[in-house]
Amino acid sequence: KHILIVPGDGIGQEVTEVGKAVLVKIAEKFGHEFTYDEALMGHVAIEATGNPLPDETLEKMRNSDAILFGAVGHPKYDNDPTAKVRPEQGLLKMRKELGLYANLRPIKLFDELLGASSIRPEILKGSDILFFRELTGDIYFGEKGRKNDNNTAYDIAEYSRYEVKRIARKAFEAARTRGKRLCSVDKANVLETSRLWREVVQALAPEYPDITVEHQFVDAAAMMLIKDPKRFDVVVTANLFGDILTDEASQIAGSMGMLASASVGDSTGVYEPIHGSAHDITGKGVANPLASVLSAALLLDISFGLKEESEAIISAVDKLLKDGFRTRDIADATTPADKILNTQQAG
Amino acid sequence: KHILIVPGDGIGQEVTEVGKAVLVKIAEKFGHEFTYDEALMGHVAIEATGNPLPDETLEKMRNSDAILFGAVGHPKYDNDPTAKVRPEQGLLKMRKELGLYANLRPIKLFDELLGASSIRPEILKGSDILFFRELTGDIYFGEKGRKNDNNTAYDIAEYSRYEVKRIARKAFEAARTRGKRLCSVDKANVLETSRLWREVVQALAPEYPDITVEHQFVDAAAMMLIKDPKRFDVVVTANLFGDILTDEASQIAGSMGMLASASVGDSTGVYEPIHGSAHDITGKGVANPLASVLSAALLLDISFGLKEESEAIISAVDKLLKDGFRTRDIADATTPADKILNTQQAG
Ligand SMILES: CC(C)[C@H](C(=O)O)[C@@H](O)C(=O)O
Ligand SMILES: CC(C)[C@H](C(=O)O)[C@@H](O)C(=O)O
Repeated sequence: KHILIVPGDGIGQEVTEVGKAVLVKIAEKFGHEFTYDEALMGHVAIEATGNPLPDETLEKMRNSDAILFGAVGHPKYDNDPTAKVRPEQGLLKMRKELGLYANLRPIKLFDELLGASSIRPEILKGSDILFFRELTGDIYFGEKGRKNDNNTAYDIAEYSRYEVKRIARKAFEAARTRGKRLCSVDKANVLETSRLWREVVQALAPEYPDITVEHQFVDAAAMMLIKDPKRFDVVVTANLFGDILTDEASQIAGSMGMLASASVGDSTGVYEPIHGSAHDITGKGVANPLASVLSAALLLDISFGLKEESEAIISAVDKLLKDGFRTRDIADATTPADKILNTQQAG
Repeated sequence: KHILIVPGDGIGQEVTEVGKAVLVKIAEKFGHEFTYDEALMGHVAIEATGNPLPDETLEKMRNSDAILFGAVGHPKYDNDPTAKVRPEQGLLKMRKELGLYANLRPIKLFDELLGASSIRPEILKGSDILFFRELTGDIYFGEKGRKNDNNTAYDIAEYSRYEVKRIARKAFEAARTRGKRLCSVDKANVLETSRLWREVVQALAPEYPDITVEHQFVDAAAMMLIKDPKRFDVVVTANLFGDILTDEASQIAGSMGMLASASVGDSTGVYEPIHGSAHDITGKGVANPLASVLSAALLLDISFGLKEESEAIISAVDKLLKDGFRTRDIADATTPADKILNTQQAG
């Protein structure tokens, strides 16, 4: 099995180093032979080649069995809305080129972190949500541009039945292996893409009579996620809504630094933290590497079918937390100073 | 001064009744002469006339000095994504026809309700956010439809510089009268409309050197609102992002049932709860009418410049809460049964 490591920008570099170290260790322990390669993407790729996703990287991606990815982005582009070349273009192009239409974001709270969230523990306890975010359609990939002498900007959101169906199916199937509840989130009272979305989900439902299906408007869902997270089991939603809701839902897990994601579809899967490049803390050694470590666990499970190995990683994370070790984002007033790790130690 | 009451659907009917009763009382107490009229909108208007916003209603709206509005919507349309006539069309048409481009949503926590939220009291305490949601542009109002034999749906998001500028200006001006911090929320790393948005806000900033401006991506903002709500003072954002973020932020105030909003622009202002028609609790007398009562307070303040009268209402709400009265949405285990009000009593 060949794994491509794509650290990307900012803390992406620091955290994937730890994620890879864990893969190396697991292979050793369970007697697997993984080979590794590395490639550039994002701001670092723009600096080196002018292209946020160089052909060489894409080629290496296609030739790998799985990709451990960090994050891309740089404040420089955020502060210049007129920049023509941007790190995120590389990310979006990767998703499209590799056909990664399903982004799985499990939101699971480690019991030890009940105190790290801004939400009350009694509201949180027992929450376990699996998001399916559609990842290659919507307003992310429609035509966009300027008109009227650069005085008007537009973005086109688009979904085909086919696109909605394949992600909805994945979500229905996953619900079967879990709590048997599916919540489809849309804005069907306003958007035509959402009305198509709802039609397709409604049409699929009879094929899954064992699954209880609910439809929520995205505004109500954004509220309900905080008010009563236990109400959700599997959630399926469009690209943009998924982006917003999963970041919000990270608060259920205590910190964004704990959340891994898997992007899968037609071929190679990509595994990455849901957090970004976080240049404000880059190089300080304070980034929480657990999202990358848990991404490695997802990789072993989903792309390689190595369940036991994957669970070994999750148990190790659990033990680390039980032993009281914390990075700053999940530490609180009661954490003793000698248990606050920097990234290297956590690895 | 002439006030038009538009109850709309579901609990809209119950809560505006209380809101109006408060206006009548205040006028009596402060010696004002308000006249009232009523008009249909939403599902009830469709049932009566086939049109969610009948011409007669629009005419009455134009001829009023302010509008106290309830909510529109009905599950019937939500379950049928192919319905051609929908209550929400009336709402959107009203916003467009009356030029209500600025939707103000103050998120303020009454201290007595610190326990009603799912967020920890120590995170919440002192939160006070004023949202400016753009209300007549974005993906709500662009062209939308189907193509490819009804197999693809699309929605076009659009913003002009002019539209962004006028709402951003209102937000900058408001920040001046408050904490002098403005957070502009967009998705400029992906959307062209957001890049235009950011350009315009950046270009305005030098005119307000006393205001500290920050730009956040909508996903990060959705997370940060829960993690650290005190970080925000004035927030300005596009129509769709504002819809999602303000519903989410309702959890900061304990319940959606506490939140009022003002939609203003070129002429008559519209004042309404941010909650919807909530057919699941309609007719049970359990709806929280305080959002409508607080909408009446906003009406007096913003449309009529009656600050003292407006504050009298807010004090009365505060006293009601201090006296321990609660509707169910803001009650908790410690609320004695005889202090749990139904809608009529609360009025
Ligand atoms: C960096 C950005 C383009 C990206 C997205 O919006 O998809 C990120 O927020 C994510 O969620 O992976
Ligand atoms: C009912 C719906 C169309 C509306 C909106 O999305 O604007 C509502 O959610 C609101 O926030 O006023």
